[in-house]
Amino acid sequence: MTYCLGMLLEAGLVMMADTRTNAGVDNISSYKKLHILESSEAMCVIACTAGNLSVSQLAFNYLAEGLPEIEEGAGRRRIAGMANMHRVAGLVGEAIHCAREEIKEATGENQYDFTASMLVGGRFAGRPLRLFHIYSVGNFISCQPDRPFLQIGETKYGRPILDRAARWEMALDDAVKTGLLSFDSTMRSNLGVGRPIDLAVLPADEGQPMLTRRIEEEDAYFDELSRLWAKALAEVRKGIPMPPFMAGVGGAQAAG
Amino acid sequence: MTYCLGMLLEAGLVMMADTRTNAGVDNISSYKKLHILESSEAMCVIACTAGNLSVSQLAFNYLAEGLPEIEEGAGRRRIAGMANMHRVAGLVGEAIHCAREEIKEATGENQYDFTASMLVGGRFAGRPLRLFHIYSVGNFISCQPDRPFLQIGETKYGRPILDRAARWEMALDDAVKTGLLSFDSTMRSNLGVGRPIDLAVLPADEGQPMLTRRIEEEDAYFDELSRLWAKALAEVRKGIPMPPFMAGVGGAQAAG
Repeated sequence: MTYCLGMLLEAGLVMMADTRTNAGVDNISSYKKLHILESSEAMCVIACTAGNLSVSQLAFNYLAEGLPEIEEGAGRRRIAGMANMHRVAGLVGEAIHCAREEIKEATGENQYDFTASMLVGGRFAGRPLRLFHIYSVGNFISCQPDRPFLQIGETKYGRPILDRAARWEMALDDAVKTGLLSFDSTMRSNLGVGRPIDLAVLPADEGQPMLTRRIEEEDAYFDELSRLWAKALAEVRKGIPMPPFMAGVGGAQAAG
Repeated sequence: MTYCLGMLLEAGLVMMADTRTNAGVDNISSYKKLHILESSEAMCVIACTAGNLSVSQLAFNYLAEGLPEIEEGAGRRRIAGMANMHRVAGLVGEAIHCAREEIKEATGENQYDFTASMLVGGRFAGRPLRLFHIYSVGNFISCQPDRPFLQIGETKYGRPILDRAARWEMALDDAVKTGLLSFDSTMRSNLGVGRPIDLAVLPADEGQPMLTRRIEEEDAYFDELSRLWAKALAEVRKGIPMPPFMAGVGGAQAAG
């Protein structure tokens, strides 16, 4: 399993991915799922992957080699040659689509579901930050301020905290904290999602550098965040009044 | 969509179900999904249903009419004639299986997924409370104290709070409150789950009556629970220190 989260905010772009892969519970491994595809003065492109690893790795290979030229002499198509982030998303979608078709054809398998999806975020110099969800057949959607986050993989356990807290206007540190809380909930409920967590933060202010960080298996801040959150949730739950209609039921001490 | 939750605790049995059904977002309706199948001095059996409504309704019809007798003269098999809760779970599983097969055969459809699952809980007089998850093909599992809850339908959004809080030893009023928080998270993230919420509580103490209640669209306690929980979560999140590695990134005020 996998959990990847992208947040596109007024203050910048946050992308996070866990590193756990599993093919059954007896075959658990660790693979990097957050990849810096381009990082130059001209552009910065980050991708997070979920789904079939052979598909996403082959897609990255296509992107590195360049996709077939459209007309003779135009040259193979790579991310660095695209005109904008929207075109980058389209190229990544095409790479995923081609990878999937190649694997299906090569293996002759129809029963396996060779699907992979990606979050692709980044910026061309002087242009706004963008974030896309690329589906396994190659189409994609763009993240919008009304709901400033996108998720792939094991998305549901960690979504309530995002629905409550993720806002276009939030600061980057608050966004990273909120994202880590979302990962914490996910990791509690699904063993297929686990640390290390890879993180990339691209501030909207182009004068500031990209921050990348790996939250390791042992990370004092994450451990403390997880502990404080669990403790506070228990206290908050305790502080909410008992249902008045339960007064006296089963020896309950409820009082309206 | 649907969300149903059963909790089997030292203090008793709690079963909850929402009432929203939808076949597409333009066809939303309200159906009762929590059913008291038997309530006599001899036994009490409660079922919550998720999945295809035509399957679960037909399964209930089978149970009411009685499933075919096994040997001539033995009589049709009904819940009231079963020897214990384990047999009840088996009979309900058989009813779901038969309903599904009948509908598949009658419609000649293979492309639709006529699946339904149920939570079945209750007690035979003088015997312990039991709770089962009946799968759509008819097999079932029993709830155990180590993880004292079972869910069907839209299970993931509301599960983190249960993973954190649900304990075999918890009081019934606390269990109901925790269950309502689980529904609150689910309803925030999936419009296919909605109030009214039906609730049945069967105390372990057989001297106490079963409590049933419907939490309506407008319910002062639930509204307050939802409001307090949202407010407290926001405050708790605010109170957790910012990631020290984010200090200064994007103008953040983070401090280790």
